[in-house]
Amino acid sequence: MMEKWYVGVDLGGTTIKMAFISEKGNIVEKWEIPTDITNEGKNITKDIAKALQDQLQELGEKKEKLVGIGMGAPGFIEMETGFIYQAVNIGWRNYPLKESLEEETGLPVIIDNDANIAALGEMWRGAGDGAKDLLCVTLGTGVGGGIVANGEILHGTNGMAGEIGHITVLPEGGTPCNCGKTGCLETIASATGIARVAAAGIKEAPYSVLADIFQKSGELTSKDIFDAVEQGDLYAKEVVNHICFHLGLAIANLANAINPEKIVIGGGVSKAGNLLLTPLQKSFETYALPRVAEGSDFAIATLGNDAGVIGGAWLVKTKLAKKDKVIPS
Amino acid sequence: MMEKWYVGVDLGGTTIKMAFISEKGNIVEKWEIPTDITNEGKNITKDIAKALQDQLQELGEKKEKLVGIGMGAPGFIEMETGFIYQAVNIGWRNYPLKESLEEETGLPVIIDNDANIAALGEMWRGAGDGAKDLLCVTLGTGVGGGIVANGEILHGTNGMAGEIGHITVLPEGGTPCNCGKTGCLETIASATGIARVAAAGIKEAPYSVLADIFQKSGELTSKDIFDAVEQGDLYAKEVVNHICFHLGLAIANLANAINPEKIVIGGGVSKAGNLLLTPLQKSFETYALPRVAEGSDFAIATLGNDAGVIGGAWLVKTKLAKKDKVIPS
Repeated sequence: MMEKWYVGVDLGGTTIKMAFISEKGNIVEKWEIPTDITNEGKNITKDIAKALQDQLQELGEKKEKLVGIGMGAPGFIEMETGFIYQAVNIGWRNYPLKESLEEETGLPVIIDNDANIAALGEMWRGAGDGAKDLLCVTLGTGVGGGIVANGEILHGTNGMAGEIGHITVLPEGGTPCNCGKTGCLETIASATGIARVAAAGIKEAPYSVLADIFQKSGELTSKDIFDAVEQGDLYAKEVVNHICFHLGLAIANLANAINPEKIVIGGGVSKAGNLLLTPLQKSFETYALPRVAEGSDFAIATLGNDAGVIGGAWLVKTKLAKKDKVIPS
Repeated sequence: MMEKWYVGVDLGGTTIKMAFISEKGNIVEKWEIPTDITNEGKNITKDIAKALQDQLQELGEKKEKLVGIGMGAPGFIEMETGFIYQAVNIGWRNYPLKESLEEETGLPVIIDNDANIAALGEMWRGAGDGAKDLLCVTLGTGVGGGIVANGEILHGTNGMAGEIGHITVLPEGGTPCNCGKTGCLETIASATGIARVAAAGIKEAPYSVLADIFQKSGELTSKDIFDAVEQGDLYAKEVVNHICFHLGLAIANLANAINPEKIVIGGGVSKAGNLLLTPLQKSFETYALPRVAEGSDFAIATLGNDAGVIGGAWLVKTKLAKKDKVIPS
């Protein structure tokens, strides 16, 4: 029998990542198109349909080669219907994304949150290594999360599950967060949070590597901090230990409740590798139940920007492919 | 067609609660037998089988009336095989509970953790009101928990999911917990924890209702504290606010990750009703994301000691009844 392809689509505010993915989860072809946010985002599904058509033609394949589309989108989504309540960066409001994309492409579509499909991608083909109970923590501009339990993404009652960036780590006196609360994990453990923590205490460490950088450039990045740790800078170490105390405690508390097999750390900050993982695991092991800690392995995410499209393909494989769903084109 | 019954069994250290339960979840008959922990707990499955036989005879029914047994047990359980690694209070160690009970009764058996079946019971017929995403928190001698996501209990990778009593709420300087860590939620929000917190600060409040009780009896119970709140005692109020600050924060942080529809509070402490719920919800709403808080309702558990047997029956209904499993007797 001819092998079929899954389509993974990962929608961001500036680009749409797309891929044809084999039944085993290998990327056959991947490409990007710009996100057109004019016209309240209403051109996007047409753009995706056209890009699919063009790419098929270039590869000399027909639409029958494709099983369906698994797509990750930002914002608040009603999972069962693929209806977007609101996606601020895109311009959608009460938008029937699944319906519109099925109409434009003639293919069955399944939609999920962008952080969730990245977690599914890592579970299937990345650092998750097939673990069915998985916690994904993305340390980027913000702190995102995806929780997989028994092989299924947790969505919760109104699609908010996995919002671990908004776990309150400083109940009093914390920094304001974009969500309207204060003291969220995101204000401390995101790339911007780490830089903020380091800059806030820089006066206490005038003879540090970081103080030199701060004096010259007027700012710090999370990369500066991990680079300084590698150079043996004590202040940078102190900052990373402080971050890892809060992040490790938050992850341990969550792990005591969901008992994951794998804890995958992704996002830009995860490029620090063991400079981050070693103090993080130490903090985690202090606060997790011994049997929970024994059952959990930490790993750095391995799929990078491909996690989303691979997770989208996983959704097609597990949610659409079995149904033999046919949509008239 | 003749209605069949489910058997719910809830094993405790001193008694075994048993019930015949209708297909709709109503208790037809319930009774208890003592837990025989002699002979390393090896008489227990025989005792259960005999109790079933006796009760059937008394009701003039035959074994064919029974679909199967759903049983809750304490300790570390391998869910798929119903194998007990260790149950200290019972005496079991590497004990094939499911296999032994199937052999003794000739009925199919499904085993789960006792806190988990109580959560399933509340979901099906109690305060959970059918919610498919549910967090159950039991405030008793300890703090237990059960998490239901999409209608299924979370077990985690080695059966430890739901151990929310061991969320660390005081990372430094906390009271030692039975688990070997310090500063666990259980050391503060269990019945014993609440009494301990109140006793620890009693010298600061010599003119309180609680100080009078403490002077007379040399001890405090969690009931004393809520009774004193009802009498308007300021110190007791302060203690309850302190407990609810920590408990509400821990539940909010968990809710940001799992986004439950219902949060059911059970156990002896939950008898305090709104004296507990009102400050607890206030603390929860301070730390939960607004959309998460909107989606969540708090409720006091309604099934009391029946939650376990009803949850056991739910397991039979959802996991065994569909399979038409036949075991030669």
